[in-house]
Amino acid sequence: MLTDQFYMQLALDKAWEYQLLTYPNPAVGATVTLNGRILSVEAHRKAGTSHAEVLALLKAYETLLKTEIDFDRFDAHKAHAFLLALPKDFFAECSIYVTLEPCSHTGKTPSCASLLSALELKEVIVGIEDPIESHSGGLERLKNTRSGILKEKCQALIKPFMIWQKKAFVLFKLAQSTNGRIGGGYLSSKASLTHVHQLRGVCDSLLIGANTVRVDRPTLDCRFTNGQAPDVKIYARRDDLDREIPLFSVVERSVEVISNLDFLKEPSFILVEGGEGMLKALQSRIDWMLIYQTPKLSTNNLTYNIDMNLQFLHQGKKDVDLMIWSRQVGD
Amino acid sequence: MLTDQFYMQLALDKAWEYQLLTYPNPAVGATVTLNGRILSVEAHRKAGTSHAEVLALLKAYETLLKTEIDFDRFDAHKAHAFLLALPKDFFAECSIYVTLEPCSHTGKTPSCASLLSALELKEVIVGIEDPIESHSGGLERLKNTRSGILKEKCQALIKPFMIWQKKAFVLFKLAQSTNGRIGGGYLSSKASLTHVHQLRGVCDSLLIGANTVRVDRPTLDCRFTNGQAPDVKIYARRDDLDREIPLFSVVERSVEVISNLDFLKEPSFILVEGGEGMLKALQSRIDWMLIYQTPKLSTNNLTYNIDMNLQFLHQGKKDVDLMIWSRQVGD
Repeated sequence: MLTDQFYMQLALDKAWEYQLLTYPNPAVGATVTLNGRILSVEAHRKAGTSHAEVLALLKAYETLLKTEIDFDRFDAHKAHAFLLALPKDFFAECSIYVTLEPCSHTGKTPSCASLLSALELKEVIVGIEDPIESHSGGLERLKNTRSGILKEKCQALIKPFMIWQKKAFVLFKLAQSTNGRIGGGYLSSKASLTHVHQLRGVCDSLLIGANTVRVDRPTLDCRFTNGQAPDVKIYARRDDLDREIPLFSVVERSVEVISNLDFLKEPSFILVEGGEGMLKALQSRIDWMLIYQTPKLSTNNLTYNIDMNLQFLHQGKKDVDLMIWSRQVGD
Repeated sequence: MLTDQFYMQLALDKAWEYQLLTYPNPAVGATVTLNGRILSVEAHRKAGTSHAEVLALLKAYETLLKTEIDFDRFDAHKAHAFLLALPKDFFAECSIYVTLEPCSHTGKTPSCASLLSALELKEVIVGIEDPIESHSGGLERLKNTRSGILKEKCQALIKPFMIWQKKAFVLFKLAQSTNGRIGGGYLSSKASLTHVHQLRGVCDSLLIGANTVRVDRPTLDCRFTNGQAPDVKIYARRDDLDREIPLFSVVERSVEVISNLDFLKEPSFILVEGGEGMLKALQSRIDWMLIYQTPKLSTNNLTYNIDMNLQFLHQGKKDVDLMIWSRQVGD
């Protein structure tokens, strides 16, 4: 206990809760400690809002002073200003563990490296240095730094971010019973459905097979999160689709019927929903799979047949369901 | 952070690593803290050896003094004697979180309640009080106690123990691909196989279907753990089994061919291995299921068809595999 790995793992687990929801930013987590006590564990939640380090420092402030801040903590400008106005030695005995090197550039939010430099923490420990050249250099601006803690896990965490720098990051989403049956009604928990709607709300396009559209006649909106419904691409050999299917009527969304997958060359985040047919058609293009597994065994005979090797990356609960993140690996 | 729930959850997670392996004892975990710092997280591992509290206190000693003890920490008598010989105020500022009330009776190991009483910790926080009357009363012998932290999770942890007080606790074990295919070769990781052999080593009997015996011709021993092979009960309508099947030749094990399940009325721990047939035959008797899920999708067409409602209790990794603990719930 009391090890670097333990504190970094807490930051990693928190970051996974917001995996992909931070698009186009990477998922990042942070833990603040004081003499071995854990003051806070936080993660970046949404692009354009406060980064993990900032949220963790605000929460550490609240833990230390047994108080609650009274402004919007997700407003990065307000949050930075608040932290910079604290007495200079406020965090002098604190250390921060961050899964990714603090950003050194100023984008929608101020630079975290500048902030941490001004706050003069006891130590800044990072999992990996920022692999994007224009973002790196954060560590050089800081004193008392170390890096490389749980390096492989921190790299796995930002793999989607690395992929969507160059091409589409393709996530295949599937909901199944524990004995691998798919089809109607397997997303038993509201929490799982809400998570799907959060992903739909941040992706660039939702890609779906024509057969699923014909059979399920879906809406594919984000009604559980009140989010903007995603643009939809329907993968079909020929466009014979009934325009009465609800997805065509959702406001402020484009629907395109496509017969080739060239758009996957473009940097983007593509969410794929579908069954066996789509899984087979997309197999060589799938980066990660996200499986929501419900606590049921079923005699429903709709399943999916495919040979594919995966690596489990992270697993958690969404209410009663399991949520299993995995990546496709070669043979 | 720094909450009772956080420290208790660490103890719970550690205890789940040894779930059922402590038979006939319950699984128990413990966390020791000092001013909010986590000094140790430990769990009871095997009946007849040191309890969770004792292992956690020994580890806390090591963390504080940056040293390593030089005796067998699993020898409860040595461990108690060592802890009792420490300066009286050694743990005076430490608190301990235990998932279950410390035992007040002296069995194979000395009483933990007596030990904690003598060590005069700052606080003893327990998840639940001991539900077995002859074991309870531990808290009454201690000062500065609280109970009821993560009560439901702590109750779920010892449910097998509660069941095997009265009748057989029946665990159905299954290994499957992520799309629910069973049969040969799905336990891909050595760690999962080793865990199965650990369970075989502690259960009272391994119950298996005649069909699996005929088809797989298994050995059903504990060769990965060098443990004593379990007694085997083969559930068969008629005994036409080939005695050349390896399981019959394992030394110091009894094999019985049975046609009824009355033995499940006896307090015991019964591990069930088998496929769809055995799952259906046993359905009304199954308490928990343990599924080892491998990171593969497969076109193998051997699966299992059954309607059953589960509740996921705990999930973890065994090397590359997922290990999913669940209990059967009514409709």
